[in-house]
Amino acid sequence: MTSLRLTAAEIARAIQGRVEGDAAVIITGLAPIDQARPGDLTFVAQPRYLSYLDKTPAAAVLVDANYSASLANAVLIRVANPYFAFLQIAKNFFHPAPSFIGMHPTAIIGGNVRLGENLMIGPHVVIAPDCEIGDNVCIGALSYLGRGVKLGHRVVLFPQVHVAHGVRLGNDVIIQSGAVIGSDGFGYVKHEGAYHKIPHLGAVVLEDGVEIGANCTIDRGTFGETRIRRGTKLDNLVHLAHNVEVGEHTVIAAQTGVSGSTKIGNRVTIAGNAGLVGHIEIGDDVTIGARAGVSKSIPAGLTVWGYLAREHTLARREEAAQRRLPELLKRVRALEKALAQIAPETLAKINDSEA
Amino acid sequence: MTSLRLTAAEIARAIQGRVEGDAAVIITGLAPIDQARPGDLTFVAQPRYLSYLDKTPAAAVLVDANYSASLANAVLIRVANPYFAFLQIAKNFFHPAPSFIGMHPTAIIGGNVRLGENLMIGPHVVIAPDCEIGDNVCIGALSYLGRGVKLGHRVVLFPQVHVAHGVRLGNDVIIQSGAVIGSDGFGYVKHEGAYHKIPHLGAVVLEDGVEIGANCTIDRGTFGETRIRRGTKLDNLVHLAHNVEVGEHTVIAAQTGVSGSTKIGNRVTIAGNAGLVGHIEIGDDVTIGARAGVSKSIPAGLTVWGYLAREHTLARREEAAQRRLPELLKRVRALEKALAQIAPETLAKINDSEA
Amino acid sequence: MTSLRLTAAEIARAIQGRVEGDAAVIITGLAPIDQARPGDLTFVAQPRYLSYLDKTPAAAVLVDANYSASLANAVLIRVANPYFAFLQIAKNFFHPAPSFIGMHPTAIIGGNVRLGENLMIGPHVVIAPDCEIGDNVCIGALSYLGRGVKLGHRVVLFPQVHVAHGVRLGNDVIIQSGAVIGSDGFGYVKHEGAYHKIPHLGAVVLEDGVEIGANCTIDRGTFGETRIRRGTKLDNLVHLAHNVEVGEHTVIAAQTGVSGSTKIGNRVTIAGNAGLVGHIEIGDDVTIGARAGVSKSIPAGLTVWGYLAREHTLARREEAAQRRLPELLKRVRALEKALAQIAPETLAKINDSEA
Repeated sequence: MTSLRLTAAEIARAIQGRVEGDAAVIITGLAPIDQARPGDLTFVAQPRYLSYLDKTPAAAVLVDANYSASLANAVLIRVANPYFAFLQIAKNFFHPAPSFIGMHPTAIIGGNVRLGENLMIGPHVVIAPDCEIGDNVCIGALSYLGRGVKLGHRVVLFPQVHVAHGVRLGNDVIIQSGAVIGSDGFGYVKHEGAYHKIPHLGAVVLEDGVEIGANCTIDRGTFGETRIRRGTKLDNLVHLAHNVEVGEHTVIAAQTGVSGSTKIGNRVTIAGNAGLVGHIEIGDDVTIGARAGVSKSIPAGLTVWGYLAREHTLARREEAAQRRLPELLKRVRALEKALAQIAPETLAKINDSEA
Repeated sequence: MTSLRLTAAEIARAIQGRVEGDAAVIITGLAPIDQARPGDLTFVAQPRYLSYLDKTPAAAVLVDANYSASLANAVLIRVANPYFAFLQIAKNFFHPAPSFIGMHPTAIIGGNVRLGENLMIGPHVVIAPDCEIGDNVCIGALSYLGRGVKLGHRVVLFPQVHVAHGVRLGNDVIIQSGAVIGSDGFGYVKHEGAYHKIPHLGAVVLEDGVEIGANCTIDRGTFGETRIRRGTKLDNLVHLAHNVEVGEHTVIAAQTGVSGSTKIGNRVTIAGNAGLVGHIEIGDDVTIGARAGVSKSIPAGLTVWGYLAREHTLARREEAAQRRLPELLKRVRALEKALAQIAPETLAKINDSEA
Repeated sequence: MTSLRLTAAEIARAIQGRVEGDAAVIITGLAPIDQARPGDLTFVAQPRYLSYLDKTPAAAVLVDANYSASLANAVLIRVANPYFAFLQIAKNFFHPAPSFIGMHPTAIIGGNVRLGENLMIGPHVVIAPDCEIGDNVCIGALSYLGRGVKLGHRVVLFPQVHVAHGVRLGNDVIIQSGAVIGSDGFGYVKHEGAYHKIPHLGAVVLEDGVEIGANCTIDRGTFGETRIRRGTKLDNLVHLAHNVEVGEHTVIAAQTGVSGSTKIGNRVTIAGNAGLVGHIEIGDDVTIGARAGVSKSIPAGLTVWGYLAREHTLARREEAAQRRLPELLKRVRALEKALAQIAPETLAKINDSEA
């Protein structure tokens, strides 16, 4: 974090806030309210954190404009959405200094590459021929762009990212280190007992605002595209197979895998380590629980979970019943004994006739 | 994809096909039949796609030699195996142009490295001393070969691959970006409360035709080898621990993990995100379902699935029964009430005696 | 492995052992006893391997000081802990030669970097400004250190490792290839229907003796730290989210994922592909089974397993009962038929009243 000194007044101005108390107090850092130290700016976004207000050593606290707090030790800055305002301050003032600036002389730029304005291209970056890079793009050290890659404006590739040939990224895309965008899909045709690789001639398209976590793998389409629509975010180690489509403003948590040609809707939430088979459709606004195994299409709006994913109230009921299974076995044994006493031959006869 | 122009006659010649219609029609691209556009070559491999034949705008269609189609709009090319022929055309004529050719001057080649003929070694590649590289090998940018690595002929390492010291690759091996071949195994000996790393002195051997997906990790043997036999294919993010052996022509889908010293047979199919414990044996021709947890050896030919993997008809029956568990609880409750009415004291007495 | 020639006497001296037989016998390699060849040093650590003693072609065998073996073909070296002694020999004498030595001229070192003594910094390494590197550190080729990274002494980064800005590593830390330490956490705030990235201003701290497997991803704290305490080991492809804390001498097997802010105790064992939700606490000495899904805090000392992880004897009982579910369904059906014969109307009435 750069070492910054801002006054409460300067901060309030940046976020359309209103200061209560000493507007000249100096802010030097950021922290959540349970960890704040002297000099920090902090915030209260939920009522349960209000109790921290009296004892925080923070220099200033962002609070809801309508919050009726009497003045505590700290300076208050009233604002419409304290958490969002806090993030704006973090983003605009406390971002870490870049590790390298400008175009590093060890970067290799192939022929016929169109470069935008104001780029940061780190050491040992490799950009193959025929790429197009927008403005204000940052390409971290040791990253690789294959032939014909297109990046929009304000794209951030962290170091050691792989963007394979023909992949297209929109504006404001962020890719964490180690992610591989555009690997060949897992497609083979069996011929005389051996698997023969299907050439993967398709592409990957990541639309505006897509973010990809560390060490994710996103395969290119066999033909056609693997596509992630705008605003969608992937956590680390997520795998998307060839020709998968993910809608807008969807989030996919770490270690989830999606098999080939599956289509995921808009505003879907997928928790960690879920698995989706290929060739299914997940409707808009679906929620998929952690470690769920999804083998069928899911209509819009549903929440599913479980090893064999199903509607979550069903799943919960089955899970509760499963907890009672050992007890149930005992109860059935007792019933059998009771019947054996009441009508010694009836149950035996029925069992015989069904054997 | 390179921009190519081929006639139907040229294509037919390359795959021993027979043209019906205008053999001079120009082909400029490839696509599956439901996505084909004017100028494309496409194919029909399954009867359910025959209905597309009348309406496809494709320039030519590969069809089965024995297929009794009357001539549609498109030129037909009759061939023994249309899909396989299509892939041959893709592989031979429509492959993307390489991003870099020849040996890049920024590649670092250690001492005593034996280089074959006709190599492509990309920018910023690092090859440690004592390596041996066969002919027609492509090593993508920013890849690393440790000391004493051996690569056969026609090996393709995509950019940013890691092949650690002493690893040996046969001919025609393909490794996608970010894969790590030859990391140290996860082996420690506990001594006075702390874990001490077991030195990993073994190797990894990938035989002819093995393909490894993006960001896979394959640990070296503690002693001896981790080995994948010829023709076997791994999808992305697969983990093989130290001393695992995988047979020939086996496929392992994404995010599967195999623990130490487990042996997997020939022609095995393992679906995505399965997990195998260590020190077991999976017989030839076994099929393991997606997300299956395999804790015991499996005899040849079996199909297993489930969180606690078992023979799939058993697993299916248990899963179906589980769906009925909430209903079963109700039925047992009803039986208990009925017995309480018929013979009020019998069940109570049995339950007392078992408590 | 370097080609070494050691006598049994030299080996015994290095590990405080006592030779029985020809102390001048030459040792040229290492192997476990079931794989040993002439010239190898091997060991017997468990009684079940004693039977190999008579037939091993090994040159020398490490055995327990108190073991009452009569002399076999091989020379015996008696020592307190044969396996640990064997590993000491492996570590000290049979380590592979380094691929590169010294500081490679293609390494990029930013401004204001403090370098210790006796470093190995491989080709195409990138070290951003303001880093501090201890003594006897090895940084493999193509690795990246972000701004302000601190490494202790004797740290080993294998090639292609990523250590992001501000990350701090203690002494004797080992990181395998492809691991990403300090990626941004998966944190977003929803504002007017879109996800906005939460700036991640925290760090990652790996204490002394921590080891990280290939292609792991460890996110930095949102604020504050993600921390792994001393002696803890992670296998390959493990994911730790932002602000996770892991205690001392804990082991986490491959493909396990831990969600944000979860705290894991000391001496915990987590098997492969387990998943832990966020904001829970795992007590000291807990054991978590392979593929377990942990959604609640676990008190110290417990062993849990299962898709919905619970105490392992409970889990085992439920799993056994589940196996009997299809049979149980039949038994309940038989009971219902029997009751229908004994008291035809009773059960029907009860079912009616509950419908």
